Formats: sequence, C-alpha cells, structure tokens
Amino acid sequence: MDLNSDVGESFGAWTMGDDAGVLAHVTSANVACGFHGGDARTARATCGLAVRHGVVVGAHVSYRDLAGFGRRFLDVDPHELTDEVVYQVGALQALARVAGTAVRYVKPHGALYTAIAHHEAQAGAVVRAVVEVDPTLPLLAQPGSVVARLAQAAGLRVVPEGFPDRAYTADGRLVPRSTAGAVVHDPQEVARRAVRLALDGTTTTADGDRVLLAVESLCVHGDTPQAVAVAAATRAALDEAGVPVATFL
Amino acid sequence: MDLNSDVGESFGAWTMGDDAGVLAHVTSANVACGFHGGDARTARATCGLAVRHGVVVGAHVSYRDLAGFGRRFLDVDPHELTDEVVYQVGALQALARVAGTAVRYVKPHGALYTAIAHHEAQAGAVVRAVVEVDPTLPLLAQPGSVVARLAQAAGLRVVPEGFPDRAYTADGRLVPRSTAGAVVHDPQEVARRAVRLALDGTTTTADGDRVLLAVESLCVHGDTPQAVAVAAATRAALDEAGVPVATFL
Amino acid sequence: MDLNSDVGESFGAWTMGDDAGVLAHVTSANVACGFHGGDARTARATCGLAVRHGVVVGAHVSYRDLAGFGRRFLDVDPHELTDEVVYQVGALQALARVAGTAVRYVKPHGALYTAIAHHEAQAGAVVRAVVEVDPTLPLLAQPGSVVARLAQAAGLRVVPEGFPDRAYTADGRLVPRSTAGAVVHDPQEVARRAVRLALDGTTTTADGDRVLLAVESLCVHGDTPQAVAVAAATRAALDEAGVPVATFL
Amino acid sequence: MDLNSDVGESFGAWTMGDDAGVLAHVTSANVACGFHGGDARTARATCGLAVRHGVVVGAHVSYRDLAGFGRRFLDVDPHELTDEVVYQVGALQALARVAGTAVRYVKPHGALYTAIAHHEAQAGAVVRAVVEVDPTLPLLAQPGSVVARLAQAAGLRVVPEGFPDRAYTADGRLVPRSTAGAVVHDPQEVARRAVRLALDGTTTTADGDRVLLAVESLCVHGDTPQAVAVAAATRAALDEAGVPVATFL
Repeated sequence: MDLNSDVGESFGAWTMGDDAGVLAHVTSANVACGFHGGDARTARATCGLAVRHGVVVGAHVSYRDLAGFGRRFLDVDPHELTDEVVYQVGALQALARVAGTAVRYVKPHGALYTAIAHHEAQAGAVVRAVVEVDPTLPLLAQPGSVVARLAQAAGLRVVPEGFPDRAYTADGRLVPRSTAGAVVHDPQEVARRAVRLALDGTTTTADGDRVLLAVESLCVHGDTPQAVAVAAATRAALDEAGVPVATFL
Repeated sequence: MDLNSDVGESFGAWTMGDDAGVLAHVTSANVACGFHGGDARTARATCGLAVRHGVVVGAHVSYRDLAGFGRRFLDVDPHELTDEVVYQVGALQALARVAGTAVRYVKPHGALYTAIAHHEAQAGAVVRAVVEVDPTLPLLAQPGSVVARLAQAAGLRVVPEGFPDRAYTADGRLVPRSTAGAVVHDPQEVARRAVRLALDGTTTTADGDRVLLAVESLCVHGDTPQAVAVAAATRAALDEAGVPVATFL
Repeated sequence: MDLNSDVGESFGAWTMGDDAGVLAHVTSANVACGFHGGDARTARATCGLAVRHGVVVGAHVSYRDLAGFGRRFLDVDPHELTDEVVYQVGALQALARVAGTAVRYVKPHGALYTAIAHHEAQAGAVVRAVVEVDPTLPLLAQPGSVVARLAQAAGLRVVPEGFPDRAYTADGRLVPRSTAGAVVHDPQEVARRAVRLALDGTTTTADGDRVLLAVESLCVHGDTPQAVAVAAATRAALDEAGVPVATFL
Repeated sequence: MDLNSDVGESFGAWTMGDDAGVLAHVTSANVACGFHGGDARTARATCGLAVRHGVVVGAHVSYRDLAGFGRRFLDVDPHELTDEVVYQVGALQALARVAGTAVRYVKPHGALYTAIAHHEAQAGAVVRAVVEVDPTLPLLAQPGSVVARLAQAAGLRVVPEGFPDRAYTADGRLVPRSTAGAVVHDPQEVARRAVRLALDGTTTTADGDRVLLAVESLCVHGDTPQAVAVAAATRAALDEAGVPVATFL
C-alpha cells in the first residue's frame, strides 16, 4: 500500500504543514505546483526533502486560485485547464530534475479533484493534459470517478486512492466535509481505517456501515496540526499489521 | 543574423501585440512564461504559431510581476530567482513539447534583463538556473554585460543581442528609455540600423556617433502598434542587403 | 433612460477598450475595482475621465479572478464574497474621491452578475455588502433576478438593466452567449433594440418574438472593437427618438 | 507611549501570527490591506478583533507583492504607488467601517517602509496618497527619515516610531536584518529596550552604545513565533515602569 500526502504548500512568507515531519512516514509526495499553494523555491526544496526521505514526487495540480487555495470550484474552460495542468507539471518536472528526482505521477488537488469525480469536461481536460505531457505518468483518482473512467479509456494508469480520515457514502463516494462525522480527526481511528482499507479493501460510512473500496494508495493529509501524528500512526499501524508500505510504481 | 521578438504576452482577456504578424518575419520567438505576461493557453498557442512559421522558441523569463509586466526592478533573493527561472523554463518546456517544439534558448525579460547587465547576484542566479535546467540552452544577453561574462564563465553559450530600435552609449550600453532619442520609432530607421549592425557590427549613439556592437541576434519589439511594420521592414532590409537571416542555433 | 458601460478594465501594461471614446456617449461608468480588471492607477484615471465627461461612477465588483477576467463562476464562500465586495467598493470610493467624484452605485461583473441572477447565497452576499458599505447605493441588476428580489427586500434601490446587444428568452432572461444569435454585433440593430426597450419596454428573443422588459438602464459593452460605434449609435438613436438619456440617480 | 503591531497578515488558507494574542497587549493595529498579506475577510475580522480589544486600526500599506510579502524593494512608478496606497487605504476604510471602527493612521510596510526612509520619489508618493485620501491621518515613520521630513512639510502629523527588537546605527537608523545582532529575540531584552525608549528616549546600537531616538510609538512584531510573549513582556515592563501605554491619537 502506498501512502501519499500533500506537501510543498507553503507560499512565500506563509508556512503550511510540517513537510519534513510528514515525509518521514509516507511513500509519495504530492508537491504543490504554485497554482493553489507552493512557489518555485518551496517546490524545489520539497523535492529535495522527498529525495532525502526516499519518497516519490507527484505533481499536485490545481485550479489557478491562490486566494482560495484551490478549494473552490472554478468553471474554467476545459482547453485552458488542460494547458494549465501541462504548465504545472512542466514547472515541477524542471524543479524536480534540478533537485535530483522526477515527477512520477499526477494528483489533482482540492476542488479540482472533487469536480473531476463527476464533471466530464474538466475530467477530460485533466486526462488530456497527462496524456500530452507524459502518458506514462499514473493519475491518482477516486475509485469509480468519471476521471478514473476517462483516464483508463485514454490508456493512463489510474491509481485508486482512499482517504482513511474521511467517511464514505454507501456507494463509495466521499461524504462532504460539511456533514457531521465526515472527517475523522483521531490518529488512531485514521490508522485503523487505513489498515482495514489495506487488508479488507473496505472502509466506513457515516452510518458506521462497511463499504468496499479497492485502493492502491492512501492519502494522509499534511495540512492539519495533527498531520504528522496521523501520518506516523497510520504508518506504524500498517507496518504492525504486516502491510508492505511502498510506492505504487 | 537572427531576428528575435517578444511574443505570447497576452494575458487572459487582454491581448498584446500581433504575434502571428510578427512571427512571419522573425527567426526566434521569446515566449512569455506567465511571470510578466502570458498564461498557459497563450504560451501553448504561441508555440504552435512558432511551429507553423518555422520559428525557434525561447523562454522569456521574468521577475514575478504581472501587475508591472516585469518592467520594474524587484530586489528578489537570488536563490528564489534561480528557482523561479527554472520553474518558468520548465513550464514552457512542457507546453512547447505538447505544441510540437522545444525551448531552445533563454532570454530574460524587461527589468530583469536590464538588472543582470550589472547586478552580479541576480545575474549569477539566472546563469545558475540555465546551467541547472539545461546547460545546452544558449542565453541571449547584452554584449559586455555582467550576465554575459558570468554565463560564459559557467560554460553557457552567450548569444550577444542588439536593439536596432534603441540608441546606445559610447561604451555600448542602452540609453535609458526615458532619455530623448533613446527609442527609434520609424520602421525604416530601425531597418537601417539593423543592416548596419549585421554588416558592420556598429550602431548609433544618442549623439549620432557610431559604436562597435558585435551581435548575433537583433531584437524587434512586438508590443508596439507598429511592431509588425518594424519587423517586416527590418526583415526586408536585411534580405535586400544580402544578410542571411536565420536562427543562431 | 440611463446608459451604462464597463470601463477601467485595462490592467498594467494591457489595454482594454477605448474608455474615453465610450464615456463620451454614456451616463454611467461601471469602473473595474481590480478583481477582474483594472488597477489603482487605471481606476483613478477612469474616474477622472468620468468627471470630465459628466458621467456617474459605479463600482463594478467581481469575483477575485484576474486570469479569467471575472468571467468564470467561482464557488466562493458567501461571507468572503461579502467582504470582497466591501473591499472593492471601498477601494474605488477612495480613488473616486481623490479624482473628484464618488461611487454612486454598484454593478456586479461577469460571472458574478450571471450567478446572482439565481444563486441565492451569493446574491445575498452581494446585497449584504451593499447594505453594509452604503445602503443608499443603488444596485444594477437583471429584472426578475434573485439578487433584485433580495436587494429590494433589504431596502436597496434596484435599477433594472437591459442589454440591447443580447437576445432574451421568452421569460426575460439572457440567452447564453454560446447560443447562436445570442449577441447582436450590428450597431444599428443594437440601437434599434435600445430605443424599443426605452419606448415600449420590450425587447427581442432569439426567435424574434417580443418580450416585456422594464428597465431603467441600458448596458452598452465597452470591451469590443466596435464598442464606441455601438455606444455612439445607441446614444444617437435614443436622442433622435426623443428618449431623455440621463443617469438613473 | 503607543504600542503598535502588524496584524491581519494571514492570507486565504495561510495563517500568520496570533492576532488575538498580540492585540491583547498593544494599542495600535497595523492591519494588512491585501497587497503584501491579508485579504478582505481577514482584514474585516482583524478590525473586529481590534474593536473588541479597544485597539486603534491603521492601514498597513505595501508594495503589490504577495509572493514576497512586501519585503522586497520594487521600483514602482511613484504615481502608481500613490494610487495603490489610496486604493489600500480606501479598501480598509470600508472594511473597518463595517466592522465598527475606522482607519485612524497609515503605516507603510516592509520594504516600502525601508525604501521611503531614503527614496525621495517613493516617499513623496506615499505622502501624497495620505494627503489625498485623508490629511488628518497620521503617518508612522522612522525618525529622521526622508518620508518623515516630506510628510511634515506636507502638513501631515508624523508619529516617530521605534523598534525595541532592533539594533540601531549611531545615527539612529536600523541595522539591516542581515547583520549579526540586528534583531533581538529575547522578550525581556526587547522589553528593557522599550522601557528605555519610553523613559530616556534612547536605544542601543549593534556595538552596545546608546543613541538618542525620540519616538511616540513602539513596534512589536506580530509575525514571529514568540510575538505574543514579546508583546506581553513589553507591555508588562512599560506598565511596571509607570509608562502610560496609550494610542498616540
């Protein structure tokens, strides 16, 4: 099982998260490309940290919305979205290269991630961008999402991803953050769900039922105060349960 | 002699220049990378136009200053500047690739271009970026500038560049735009100066004297109303004078 | 009948429209506040132009989206939207004041204008902002829109606005720009529709039928190449038809 | 003696400093206006916090440089700078008003503050902006600076300001941050210097000598991890020394 986390989201004078702390526990680093967070210096430094921790680098592409941290749906033209994803991946490719590594996968961020689970035109735009920039790059996506379907149809490798700190609906979709019980904060409970996702391929709904969710990567958030604790607990629980934690590559 | 021009500087809803008109006459296209002008869609479309006109693409890197179009000195930290140049080149490399071409050189824009003619730390930062991102990329620079010296010392190819629409000082530096007579607007006079630069390696000072200026590329500006007329007149005059107009590559 | 137009949308080095040309023909100037276009210097200069032409200044508030010129729906939090509208109105109030005039009304721009015709939460957010910043400021809005209803309920004066260069649906809503026939380009036809809106309170659907549309202001667009021609033709036609053209204040 | 601190510098998803913690100890709040930090929502919330703590609100105006947090010299045109300062003050005036307070002074931020201590054209631009937007607003400035002289000549009230956490040169200027010993981190030492500035009108050079510095306001920084401790210690020391701590208004 792969463990991925959002890193490199500091911007200029503003710090977000404890990237070094989180990178000690995960296997894949979703590095911000400057459209929702991050900047050239942060991205390069984060790639350098990833190298030091033996962590694989992915491009965490986003809507162009620094003021909203990429967390708000933006009705961007699909052609423009394609070019913006290519731009972001290319910028990070160069910075990763000079930091001694390379971009090895793509993961859409925030509201873009959520939108392309169902928004056909934007999902197609993201898929097109990855096909154009490098069709060997896997795409992290929600299992059963529109973007997963389109990416597979386009010949991309899709890496299905689960969120052990989130409740799911009975049909395997994320319960919106605004719903009570949607987000799990207790590191031990997150770790328990991670182990279940890895061993049984199931997770928990808001009602406490189980739902099948076949995933190859688990996302542990890096932008909360308890991020490092959650990442450490999740990694430790997976190790203890005998789940091999390694990149999906 | 190479003819280069700044293109791809439109931004979102705002248009700048007549890129297709100018690209019909030049051999090298300095494509904006989004830091002073341009955006992902514009950059890609401009690379596509360059392909159609058989024009070589270069990365026109800048300070991060959209509001000022990169025309104002910014006292950015050199390490950050290096990373920002890498970011810009990388972003354009990806967009150029998907447009069927590649970034073949680097030219700093506006106030950055002016600053690194004398600002050692920023000049070194730009040189370092090119060395890191791809040391085979030539750097367009003013003859005799600090950045030209540092780039050569670092093993980069320096392409010395002249401005046929600008007056020079007796020691071969640009007369500031704010000085009367600094900028030549008449297309025929620009064309005449271009031919002289190509044939004699000389140009004209604000006092009308001649000054030696050995250059391999001539810049014709693309962001003025008469840009296409100037480019056309310059190209025609060079052709007529029997100067082979071709990329410096 | 009032004639309003979008002006002050140039940004830094990029010019948009011919503000002086348009301001010679209209009575209300929707001045951009820097969120979709415009900047401090442009806004002040545009207010100065409005003073010179005896034109009333309004705040043309927008989503925060320079890259998209405010033309893309952005799912911004309503509380944030309220504060952003207050911010924009305040900034323009100060610049208008130093230019010798004042902000006398508010008009939402682009995708925000379109969204708040039906999006309750964002419509309420805009209304709240105007109530807070100055409840004597009228709000330009589409007749029958959600924002018009909420603004009236909140005690604001609503100025219903029509677009003589746009086709309407049978129930008085704008035909989307993407539909064939949605936008009228011929200055004379725009002028004819303006006169009909002023005299009969009717306009034309995409099918050529007539639809009632009671408006107090007509918007003539300022960001197209033929903007000045359209504004001039519309003003001339209204004058000729004996329609008094004056601000709605 | 007045105590001022930089607050409201969070931006979107990024937090900076502990505004509520600092505002419990100071008498004047320099609220960011969105050009170096802050956004509409943050500015309004910060004004609300200031109201709750009985703290006076000032406009903390800056170069337009979010990516650099306003800490880098920008060679902006003075006319544009004037308009940008008017824009920022106006935006904050509106937000302060809806939060139940008002902008009562202006303080330039970061690199702009440093530049206008000696840069005549930019200093004049800032002074002009305050004169235009509201000539009753005092301007916080470094004693002996160019901007202080120009502001006084223009009829503005200048409030001379000291930094108890910074070493000064023998002629009363700030030792650059890059110099060893330039910044004092120990809260007790900062507090001691604050008391000396208040009682004797002197402070300490990098060499440990004393230098005269007549100030009416002391700045305690809000953007460092120990900011609240420094503010609390400074306030406590002034109280204990019998220095009346109150706004300069």
